[in-house]
Amino acid sequence: MDQENSEKGTEDAPVLPSCEDEHGGIIVELKDPMDPTEFALLLKTSLSQWKLQDGFVYHHAEPHYLMLVKWIHETPSTIPANATHRLRIGAIVLNDKRELLVVLEKHGRFKGTGIWKIPTGMVEEGEDIIVGATREVKEETGVDSEFIDVLAFRQMHKTFYQKSDLFFLCTLKPLSFEIQIQESEIDGAQWMPIAEYAAQPFAEQHYVFKYAADICLAKLEKGYTGFTPRPTTSFLSHNPSYLYVNELLTLPVSNEKKLRKL
Amino acid sequence: MDQENSEKGTEDAPVLPSCEDEHGGIIVELKDPMDPTEFALLLKTSLSQWKLQDGFVYHHAEPHYLMLVKWIHETPSTIPANATHRLRIGAIVLNDKRELLVVLEKHGRFKGTGIWKIPTGMVEEGEDIIVGATREVKEETGVDSEFIDVLAFRQMHKTFYQKSDLFFLCTLKPLSFEIQIQESEIDGAQWMPIAEYAAQPFAEQHYVFKYAADICLAKLEKGYTGFTPRPTTSFLSHNPSYLYVNELLTLPVSNEKKLRKL
Repeated sequence: MDQENSEKGTEDAPVLPSCEDEHGGIIVELKDPMDPTEFALLLKTSLSQWKLQDGFVYHHAEPHYLMLVKWIHETPSTIPANATHRLRIGAIVLNDKRELLVVLEKHGRFKGTGIWKIPTGMVEEGEDIIVGATREVKEETGVDSEFIDVLAFRQMHKTFYQKSDLFFLCTLKPLSFEIQIQESEIDGAQWMPIAEYAAQPFAEQHYVFKYAADICLAKLEKGYTGFTPRPTTSFLSHNPSYLYVNELLTLPVSNEKKLRKL
Repeated sequence: MDQENSEKGTEDAPVLPSCEDEHGGIIVELKDPMDPTEFALLLKTSLSQWKLQDGFVYHHAEPHYLMLVKWIHETPSTIPANATHRLRIGAIVLNDKRELLVVLEKHGRFKGTGIWKIPTGMVEEGEDIIVGATREVKEETGVDSEFIDVLAFRQMHKTFYQKSDLFFLCTLKPLSFEIQIQESEIDGAQWMPIAEYAAQPFAEQHYVFKYAADICLAKLEKGYTGFTPRPTTSFLSHNPSYLYVNELLTLPVSNEKKLRKL
């Protein structure tokens, strides 16, 4: 955004409280609610001061902020695209007796079907898949667990508005076994023999839950390998980020051991 | 949203053009631009007619629309969370001479480094990973290819605003070999012996490009298995969606054959 705010004569007109960002853009941050009419007027005078009267489009929004953008160079815009996917997990938690941790959902499309399904849930913003999976298992069933691997994933479109879902089918090793259900979401939870789980009348459209047992048995008996998370650093973040690779691979991960000590 | 619009007396006041959605909500759709002051006033009178004066928060925005939401039930909100991730791909395209398709990037963090890297790019909204990967290879290098599998993926946070990236390292089989570069993005492209690619001085932070060769060789020589896409239907969409599973697995995919005929 053009930074020559002081050139023109409208300097004294009121503008929205703002600061400049590292790219020379202007960030408007309202700490308190404002009357919409007053906001519209201020936005108008502000934009004329900032020399950008129109041509803005929405970029993205979160509950308490809205980003509008306008690319003013001649070159094609390099403004990052908006986020397109949410992430969901399904958790296969198997004990030593080949029993699977399953739940009866109180709401949603499984409500009233009597189908026992594996715990599922949404990965939160900024959350690692491995953290989201253990968190959801703990919340729904009270069981502590350790993330092992991703066995499969599925991409689906237009699942909410124009956006898409990525669903990760994961295995976790239980670290505790006593069940305490999340009353608000779950009607029941139990350790169920895997054969009994697989014999349930899953509808064709619930194929991921149907396949969960097949894939799980393939892992137990037929050398099926999933992707395991390897912590490593990256140029974009100081926190370790996870590379998920076939568990059979020995990578020359120079900084992996170092990170695991953290 | 409360639908009893007709109870109070402001029925004849002008409101924004709107229709009701399937959940009893109200969708405001402006076909033409509107003066912001006029919009603010109309929004105010509209909201008072719709009995919702405040308490709205932003949900999400795309270039030409903005969604605001307010949950009016006593129960916890079940409004879907906003999208949190964008998807990117890196494409390993190997010919019969163990040469890798590589490019020199004109912009971005590889600019001027002289590093030959595998083609990478953003998966577009609503696009399958397999489509995005073949599209990017074609755009950057002119080479036609067929998607084989996902060899690894990486999740990274705060890569743009508060959002996250999922990067999928994929292999593709080349169907054509003549190179025609995308002048706007690419400074050069070639088929490079994989050993020569791996010997480049990748910085620690470019580990995914470094590992690309290791993982690729592990696949060629050591039985490393990735996840292959299997088309199937789902309850949420009429189009086939893809389940990515270990290529060694034989699933009883009842509708897979049927779909492959499409």
